[in-house]
Amino acid sequence: PNGRPTIASDDKAYAFSIGLLAQEDFGGFMGVGPSKSGGNFNNFTQNARRLRLYFSWRYKDWVVNVTPDFGSSTFDGSASLFEANINYTGLRHTTLTVGYFQPRMEEESAERSGAFEFLERPAIVDIVRNIASGVGRFSVGGEHYEKRWLVGGYFTGQKVGDRNKDNTITDSQTGAVVRAVGRPYVSKDIDVFMGAGATAAFKVNNGSKGRRYTASSNTEIPLGETNLLTSGVLSDVSQIWAVGPQLALRWKRFLLKSEYYHIGVQQGASVENPSVLRSFGFDGWYVAANYTLLGNPRIYSEKIGAFTAPGVTYDFDPAHNHWGALELSGRWSVTNLHDGDTGNQQTVWESGVNWYPNRHFRFMLDYQHFIVSRDPNSKATVNLLGTTGNAVVGRVQAAF
Amino acid sequence: PNGRPTIASDDKAYAFSIGLLAQEDFGGFMGVGPSKSGGNFNNFTQNARRLRLYFSWRYKDWVVNVTPDFGSSTFDGSASLFEANINYTGLRHTTLTVGYFQPRMEEESAERSGAFEFLERPAIVDIVRNIASGVGRFSVGGEHYEKRWLVGGYFTGQKVGDRNKDNTITDSQTGAVVRAVGRPYVSKDIDVFMGAGATAAFKVNNGSKGRRYTASSNTEIPLGETNLLTSGVLSDVSQIWAVGPQLALRWKRFLLKSEYYHIGVQQGASVENPSVLRSFGFDGWYVAANYTLLGNPRIYSEKIGAFTAPGVTYDFDPAHNHWGALELSGRWSVTNLHDGDTGNQQTVWESGVNWYPNRHFRFMLDYQHFIVSRDPNSKATVNLLGTTGNAVVGRVQAAF
Amino acid sequence: PNGRPTIASDDKAYAFSIGLLAQEDFGGFMGVGPSKSGGNFNNFTQNARRLRLYFSWRYKDWVVNVTPDFGSSTFDGSASLFEANINYTGLRHTTLTVGYFQPRMEEESAERSGAFEFLERPAIVDIVRNIASGVGRFSVGGEHYEKRWLVGGYFTGQKVGDRNKDNTITDSQTGAVVRAVGRPYVSKDIDVFMGAGATAAFKVNNGSKGRRYTASSNTEIPLGETNLLTSGVLSDVSQIWAVGPQLALRWKRFLLKSEYYHIGVQQGASVENPSVLRSFGFDGWYVAANYTLLGNPRIYSEKIGAFTAPGVTYDFDPAHNHWGALELSGRWSVTNLHDGDTGNQQTVWESGVNWYPNRHFRFMLDYQHFIVSRDPNSKATVNLLGTTGNAVVGRVQAAF
Repeated sequence: PNGRPTIASDDKAYAFSIGLLAQEDFGGFMGVGPSKSGGNFNNFTQNARRLRLYFSWRYKDWVVNVTPDFGSSTFDGSASLFEANINYTGLRHTTLTVGYFQPRMEEESAERSGAFEFLERPAIVDIVRNIASGVGRFSVGGEHYEKRWLVGGYFTGQKVGDRNKDNTITDSQTGAVVRAVGRPYVSKDIDVFMGAGATAAFKVNNGSKGRRYTASSNTEIPLGETNLLTSGVLSDVSQIWAVGPQLALRWKRFLLKSEYYHIGVQQGASVENPSVLRSFGFDGWYVAANYTLLGNPRIYSEKIGAFTAPGVTYDFDPAHNHWGALELSGRWSVTNLHDGDTGNQQTVWESGVNWYPNRHFRFMLDYQHFIVSRDPNSKATVNLLGTTGNAVVGRVQAAF
Repeated sequence: PNGRPTIASDDKAYAFSIGLLAQEDFGGFMGVGPSKSGGNFNNFTQNARRLRLYFSWRYKDWVVNVTPDFGSSTFDGSASLFEANINYTGLRHTTLTVGYFQPRMEEESAERSGAFEFLERPAIVDIVRNIASGVGRFSVGGEHYEKRWLVGGYFTGQKVGDRNKDNTITDSQTGAVVRAVGRPYVSKDIDVFMGAGATAAFKVNNGSKGRRYTASSNTEIPLGETNLLTSGVLSDVSQIWAVGPQLALRWKRFLLKSEYYHIGVQQGASVENPSVLRSFGFDGWYVAANYTLLGNPRIYSEKIGAFTAPGVTYDFDPAHNHWGALELSGRWSVTNLHDGDTGNQQTVWESGVNWYPNRHFRFMLDYQHFIVSRDPNSKATVNLLGTTGNAVVGRVQAAF
Repeated sequence: PNGRPTIASDDKAYAFSIGLLAQEDFGGFMGVGPSKSGGNFNNFTQNARRLRLYFSWRYKDWVVNVTPDFGSSTFDGSASLFEANINYTGLRHTTLTVGYFQPRMEEESAERSGAFEFLERPAIVDIVRNIASGVGRFSVGGEHYEKRWLVGGYFTGQKVGDRNKDNTITDSQTGAVVRAVGRPYVSKDIDVFMGAGATAAFKVNNGSKGRRYTASSNTEIPLGETNLLTSGVLSDVSQIWAVGPQLALRWKRFLLKSEYYHIGVQQGASVENPSVLRSFGFDGWYVAANYTLLGNPRIYSEKIGAFTAPGVTYDFDPAHNHWGALELSGRWSVTNLHDGDTGNQQTVWESGVNWYPNRHFRFMLDYQHFIVSRDPNSKATVNLLGTTGNAVVGRVQAAF
């Protein structure tokens, strides 16, 4: 991005840059009940969400990106890898990629994680992207964009570290991700965006307990709280797929976004269970509204097929009556992982305010109310009665 | 620091730098007894104490620092985070900070860890700084300096990774650190430094075993040896505080330093123990003397409120009879964690010689003798009789 | 290397660079049998083999290198340290080193890991180098080269993280490595290389189970598969040594290489076993042939005493009929760890093709067939009958 420290050779053949995304969160939960039911909802704590160091070497049309991450979506304190991939950019408006990568299928994945309206993606997006894309997924594929449209497709494998966490895996996941988005109408004040994404895991990691899958997510707050939303453990999984539309409408300084996804899980014949088994269907959606009070509004980026963060016209400088950029957001997010006798449902109402003193720094404050139905699993030890609660969390962010 | 690789934009709005502190230690223990009593005192081993990569991005008055560390105070081999914080430097001689940081309260904390007279801080400083400051503590606050004085204050939270190590924590620590130091008399040959620091943990991390606290430290040698010095485990802790003076006197090439701290621990009413409980008092001090044989002596830095390492007039070059800088140090360090039926006491006598071939490299050699009284805990498995011993440890250091 | 991003001060006193070696592998095993016998041979998976970020600071004749690694020889997903050392280069053609380092004894260790003919070193080299050298070994020593010869020698200690993995170690390893190589005949078309290396562990790490040693390696494929080749656990080890010749002959575009090593293990008197115990002898060798079809052939590097990867005359550019460099390789590798009633033997036949579109990127494809004799250990749970199998693995690589 602009402002990222870069050194280049005089003949332009070489370039090297070091970028940063630093996000640190602090806050807690209030009024979680009817009882905490054994779940962990910290009253007040802190977490480094993302501490990514983006190292990038370019030689002519070839680019290699390696990005360690010292933050965590739950409990900070360990080092991991966000990406490590090799790219060929010699074809016009096209990037071909191989290696650990984050293939994008949803609008909320295509947005850069430093540009989100809220602290976290909606739960349904978080679940769908983890089927066969998400952070650190081994990928082979590419993306191509034009002024009015963008398409991308990747074959994918395991996530980095999958076999470190479970070294009994004897057959690793394979899958795919595709995305196609366009802008049927564009004017100075209006931007209409629509598209679709689809993903599938042709087979999931096969470890000592066979091919298992559990859809699960937190309450869209990154403080390491207990995941209440769950599909339950589905065993002997032969295939998972998800598909859905993504829509957005910008009118002047106002942006409305929505995505819906349906997830299908097929259980299949295994050595232990040779008979044909069940299918499960889950779905979820969100609707998010955003208004930019100060600064330039969120606009569409052709290169990534997604909306970006507000821009700052003049850096924060009270002496000259410059206040940076300010935006308000509201979101309704519903995820239904209940099917038959398994899984439950979560609804989150969220509101937030973001302040940008300049293009590199940002301060966020989110309030949310969540409602999660009971876990029907007879062995569940938390969330026996359904749970509601609230959270207030702030974030400080720097991005270069 | 000077000599750190930096790139900046022509308009001075941007700057980026990568610094380093690399320290590797090798040595071992001799004559530890009356018996090793189960403790681990390696005869000869190595440890990477600090391998910090200081990444720093600046945009105008805003600075973000992220510093991974591949060293360890005990057993090297893992990656951790030294700091990740956002700073505003727009007010004169003032830095405002939020994020994971090392707030400084003691003179031995304010000194840069590449400038220590010895391999490690005195045990009492190590214990006091870990109450509510220390490495990687979430902090919100600031520091202001003038030519003759410096004040700093921070509200603090958990340390990075606290909930990674214990994911049962449902309420995280809060605390504070304050420091005020000054130089009542300064001349060319004489520098008189005095000040005070105070810290408190208003509440400590609440995990599955409740709010517990153990003051403990090693023998001031960073080879992963068993911690013999301990207060014992104090449970149902409601509050911890510490306060004490810091003094130093420089006379030409001679530097004398001393700090004393008193620690108070209050046990308090918990759900399980509703009655009012005990208070504990611990204390400790050190006196350190230093003489710079070759090179420029240790002088006071106004910006950090502490003394710095000797300077090298001419880089090491035997052909021109230049030998860099050389200093000798001696220290007496006493820590008394004994109160009633719990805890014990440690005395360490230490001497050291440091050689600086140039401003970026340093070689250290320390010898110490330690005396630790018996652990009165009836369940203790080591140090049943009290322990004495010696250690000889060298260090190679590079700093940029 | 050339093309590594570097910044330097105008007076040449300072230089700083950031290099990269990124290697990601994907592939799997076929036809492993007579039965998989409990071993893990993944059908298709991925692994980040090396993700090394080479940070290097130089001040005049002093250089410090720190290199984190986010890859793994087995299961990626964690961060480790490749090296962290301080070097003095003030003597002509000589480097003196202290700190965590990779001391080189074998030709296949002296080759840079981005230049290998195959994905992995031969098993015997992997085993010998791990006795007292290998990655992240604490070392004190140096290397000197001339046009026709090179000598190096190091005293060595533990590997970084040894005591993190086993914190019961109370006495750490000490050892040594020496190497001497030369080129008795050199002409434009012919290069004759010969030399020898020797290593010894004077004592091995002493943990809760005493001083133990197990020689073991995988099938020369880095996908985290089960190690079938093993010497069995040898206890009460007093000393380990290894010695052997290294030979190579280049004729125009053809390169033939071979190394042989013999390993001796002495068991010795311990407190528990006061009697004199056994000696074990193991050995292994490889022969590798390489032909460069396109581009400049592999040539000898005086500075490292080893052969380098092929060079690219013109970068890949099909429009101008430039195809980069292409080489074919074949290898026969035998390792015999069988002695009396312990250990077994492995033979690997390997062939590979490497394509270099330019000097910084490389694509590799290896096929191998392996034959491992049965593990005679009566408590073994895998490889009860001997195992044969095949593997096909590709690699994408970027190096700066």
